[in-house]
Amino acid sequence: MNRVKCIISYDGSEFAGFQVQPNKRTVQGEIEKVLSRMHKGEFIRIHGSGRTDAGVHAKGQVFHFDTDLSLDEKQWIRALNTQLPEDISVLSAELVDSTFHARFSAQEKEYHYYVYTGTNRNPFLRKYSHHYPYGLDVEAMVKAQHYFLGTHDFTSFSSAKSEVEDRVRTISSFEIVEEHEQLIFKIRGNGFLYNMVRIIVGTVLEVGIGKRKPEDIPEIIQAKERAKAGKTAPGQGLYLYKVYY
Amino acid sequence: MNRVKCIISYDGSEFAGFQVQPNKRTVQGEIEKVLSRMHKGEFIRIHGSGRTDAGVHAKGQVFHFDTDLSLDEKQWIRALNTQLPEDISVLSAELVDSTFHARFSAQEKEYHYYVYTGTNRNPFLRKYSHHYPYGLDVEAMVKAQHYFLGTHDFTSFSSAKSEVEDRVRTISSFEIVEEHEQLIFKIRGNGFLYNMVRIIVGTVLEVGIGKRKPEDIPEIIQAKERAKAGKTAPGQGLYLYKVYY
Repeated sequence: MNRVKCIISYDGSEFAGFQVQPNKRTVQGEIEKVLSRMHKGEFIRIHGSGRTDAGVHAKGQVFHFDTDLSLDEKQWIRALNTQLPEDISVLSAELVDSTFHARFSAQEKEYHYYVYTGTNRNPFLRKYSHHYPYGLDVEAMVKAQHYFLGTHDFTSFSSAKSEVEDRVRTISSFEIVEEHEQLIFKIRGNGFLYNMVRIIVGTVLEVGIGKRKPEDIPEIIQAKERAKAGKTAPGQGLYLYKVYY
Repeated sequence: MNRVKCIISYDGSEFAGFQVQPNKRTVQGEIEKVLSRMHKGEFIRIHGSGRTDAGVHAKGQVFHFDTDLSLDEKQWIRALNTQLPEDISVLSAELVDSTFHARFSAQEKEYHYYVYTGTNRNPFLRKYSHHYPYGLDVEAMVKAQHYFLGTHDFTSFSSAKSEVEDRVRTISSFEIVEEHEQLIFKIRGNGFLYNMVRIIVGTVLEVGIGKRKPEDIPEIIQAKERAKAGKTAPGQGLYLYKVYY
């Protein structure tokens, strides 16, 4: 048996998310369909590093699967890309040890969130960036962002639907980069709760328009209450950028 | 009566082109629908600077229309953008003299054509750039491109379906810019025949992979025969960038 680790990029616009769901077009579903075809109908389960929601993109999602086919790495890339739809691209394939697990071996993840700040609506960014043309105080946002670094209980920044018990996570880096008319939030940590990146970005944007002060962030964290934080920023600005092992 | 000139940007992916066609979603159709609604059901015809094909994009398409409404320029932008679908954006609206005509007053047009040269397929560019990962000799392409400058009969570079009689056009500038993993062909001239930009780009790409020599271009132009030129590059890489008046 061989274990294969793949890194993929996908445009999330036309997917109901990463994870398989009945009667919906999902990234996992498309990949398992192709792999099962390659294995003469034998069902092949893939294991992703984690889910992404509907409309959320990936530049470096990782999954693994087990196979008795013995293709080399280039052959895997070619075979998969030939059969996968154009909104998924396999960037690399690697034969790994059977102890490797895309989800459980992950040390850290990095997400990028794109905010388009231009006045005019941009039709090319409508599925790829969150349009927020309200005049942002980037300096205040950078101040706010520093409070997230380190180890905290992120209950205030996770969906109230979240059923995870341990909500303590460590954010190891968080920066805001300006590029053309976009701001890119780059956030890296050892784990993220459901909707955590989108709620953090939504809250920092509220600091950007003066609705909140940077100094409010520690209180919001301490409250451990979803209602204290800002709105959940929409999915189309979010990219799973890299999984670190 | 007021004449209004609008500059718009659109993502062509989900349109059957600019021009109205029965039972198809077109840019003109969407705009006329909104304008007619604003005029209480009176049909308002818009006049574009020219057509764009299915899948072709625009960053600066221009149209005009006549109206007895007296909105100012900001009000026109707001009213239209509120009602138009998200893949069309009105960038500017201007009250113009009744002698202005979006098509007949145009002096020059500029098109940009995007070619993505990276090895890995990029899901985010599939509708916005032509993937051509075959290793390009950019120096040879730049040489080839110089032969297009000036005034020529471009019969070889127009669709055989073209029924225009006078196929002499002047290209005033043509450059190739490298940006990240994309090449951008920027071409400006006093008029373009049907498919002309796409056939020119397709032919220059064939020079890039060594299938043709830069010195072949003058012969191809002189032949006045569509079959002598290269393939028509696909629509999704093409952008109507600007119309000059």
